[in-house]
Amino acid sequence: MKKHGLFALSRRAVLRGAAYVLAASLAASPLAAADDPLPSWNDGPAKSAIVAFVAAVTTNDGADFVPPEERIVVFDNDGTLWVEQPFYTQLAFALDRVKALAPQHPEWREREPFRAAMAGDIKALAASGERGLVELVMATHAGMTTEEFAVIVTDWLKTARHPRFERSYTDLIYQPMLELLAYLRANDFKTHIVSGGGIEFMRPWTEGVYGVPPEQMIGSSIKTVFEIRDGTPVLVRLPEIDFIDDKAGKPVGIHKFIGRRPIAAFGNSDGDLQMLQWTTSAPGRRFGLIIHHDDAEREYAYDRDSRVGRLDKALDAAPANGWTVVSMKQDWAAVFPGQ
Amino acid sequence: MKKHGLFALSRRAVLRGAAYVLAASLAASPLAAADDPLPSWNDGPAKSAIVAFVAAVTTNDGADFVPPEERIVVFDNDGTLWVEQPFYTQLAFALDRVKALAPQHPEWREREPFRAAMAGDIKALAASGERGLVELVMATHAGMTTEEFAVIVTDWLKTARHPRFERSYTDLIYQPMLELLAYLRANDFKTHIVSGGGIEFMRPWTEGVYGVPPEQMIGSSIKTVFEIRDGTPVLVRLPEIDFIDDKAGKPVGIHKFIGRRPIAAFGNSDGDLQMLQWTTSAPGRRFGLIIHHDDAEREYAYDRDSRVGRLDKALDAAPANGWTVVSMKQDWAAVFPGQ
Repeated sequence: MKKHGLFALSRRAVLRGAAYVLAASLAASPLAAADDPLPSWNDGPAKSAIVAFVAAVTTNDGADFVPPEERIVVFDNDGTLWVEQPFYTQLAFALDRVKALAPQHPEWREREPFRAAMAGDIKALAASGERGLVELVMATHAGMTTEEFAVIVTDWLKTARHPRFERSYTDLIYQPMLELLAYLRANDFKTHIVSGGGIEFMRPWTEGVYGVPPEQMIGSSIKTVFEIRDGTPVLVRLPEIDFIDDKAGKPVGIHKFIGRRPIAAFGNSDGDLQMLQWTTSAPGRRFGLIIHHDDAEREYAYDRDSRVGRLDKALDAAPANGWTVVSMKQDWAAVFPGQ
Repeated sequence: MKKHGLFALSRRAVLRGAAYVLAASLAASPLAAADDPLPSWNDGPAKSAIVAFVAAVTTNDGADFVPPEERIVVFDNDGTLWVEQPFYTQLAFALDRVKALAPQHPEWREREPFRAAMAGDIKALAASGERGLVELVMATHAGMTTEEFAVIVTDWLKTARHPRFERSYTDLIYQPMLELLAYLRANDFKTHIVSGGGIEFMRPWTEGVYGVPPEQMIGSSIKTVFEIRDGTPVLVRLPEIDFIDDKAGKPVGIHKFIGRRPIAAFGNSDGDLQMLQWTTSAPGRRFGLIIHHDDAEREYAYDRDSRVGRLDKALDAAPANGWTVVSMKQDWAAVFPGQ
């Protein structure tokens, strides 16, 4: 894969010596390469808007200064921090779990959505609708303790591979977004994830992969109940929806878990529309950003007609709300880590 | 009010000079008074147990070392951080709200639990049971936006006074617990509050009063819904229970909001029993503490037979679980700030 801009400069550094690089990087960008907190972002309006926002809210005597404790920012996960195509990673997990549990459930062979899940028949699965998906989630995500479920997720991630990229799902995270998370934290922002995905499907790995600890995760959930089993307290996962953290549920989840309004929101689909509205409509300097997947070569290209991660209303709402729209193709020098 | 121990020493310091005090305080305690992070705690087994736990989990090469990101601790609020007698502060708030809203509700004059609430007839109110209390909460806590509710709570706290102490409720917080919160945070613990009380009743003031930010609050809640009103996004509070964060709900709330097990839990009633069990039954060094209200002179004395904050099962469970039981009378040199 082709390398771009500042990333390429820092490689040349090794070969051509420090003096040359200093001159070259100063020429290429107002920031020296070594000092650029966002080396995988190409220079352009998106990168400039991010840097300008951070400067504005962290400048002590500025009109837009925000004290560190109020520097709350929220990120969607699927399609914003990691790949969500050809279908959500959590669905891949559920399908693999159905296969793993199938020997204990001979009745699944002839029952939808289980038959479709075992056959990998995504079309039939989609036809089973939300009801089918909920049934699939309950059969694969409930019935065990919270600690058992965390082990199941962790073990699955060790061996599961993305069908196109043939890499671990936790490798298919966006390098520019990792840099953005780190840049914000270095400026005393508190980074939270607000995902439509299952909160307990994310918590086992987000601290290691994104640097976002379990207590800064918000997501959809099923109910749990406290029990004492053989003298040991456990929390058991019930086959019952607790909270759907998507669309209008995202501001509800943010308020429930964080209790104050973020000053910046980062998303990529209509599922993030209300989170962006809630975040950026408050008084004071605010920042909204949408990642537009327009890079079929390096990742995927999809928006208004996509089944997964549809971006339609939020794209239309961006200009009037002053939200930054990131072109993956033009704004990102690299997509995944280590490229 | 009588002063005790280290507190008294530090007053004498002003009078008798530094040299004398140094000798005296070294004699009285292994810590010099000026360096004591818990000056309102009398020397004794409770204070020693706290200091030993903190030393154990923060000593880098020690067997019980816990990395800072896992130093999660949870505190109950009513009766653990502030006064809960003669009834929960939130009930006082609800009663005052009923009175404030009564002119718009002439039908309340003859309807329970509203009649009882307006008359301050706590006995009749109690007779209306959980159903009556829920009705009272819904009538006084729902129907407005989240931001309007925060203003209502903040305004009420400015003028409301405790019936016995005739002080603001946010003055009736426990000085030893403020010191404990600060001591833990100084040792890189993250302090969360896990209360049966309403999360939105606490969030407007806990950061200023306890140093616990909104995102580290867990409590009972009613549902909210996202709406756009006259072009402005709002969250509206609905008259519907979302979550009851009490008893077996406390470990559920901890898991939901924090997503990892605390290493220490601080409570005062049977409502904290399961939170204490959940926290202290995990492997590794753990700490559980119960405040026993046995000081009728300076605060209140109540336990097994109390209607509010009953301490019965948790008190029985303390010895076998190794939980520290604090005698307010013996262990606390001061109860409230500024005494």
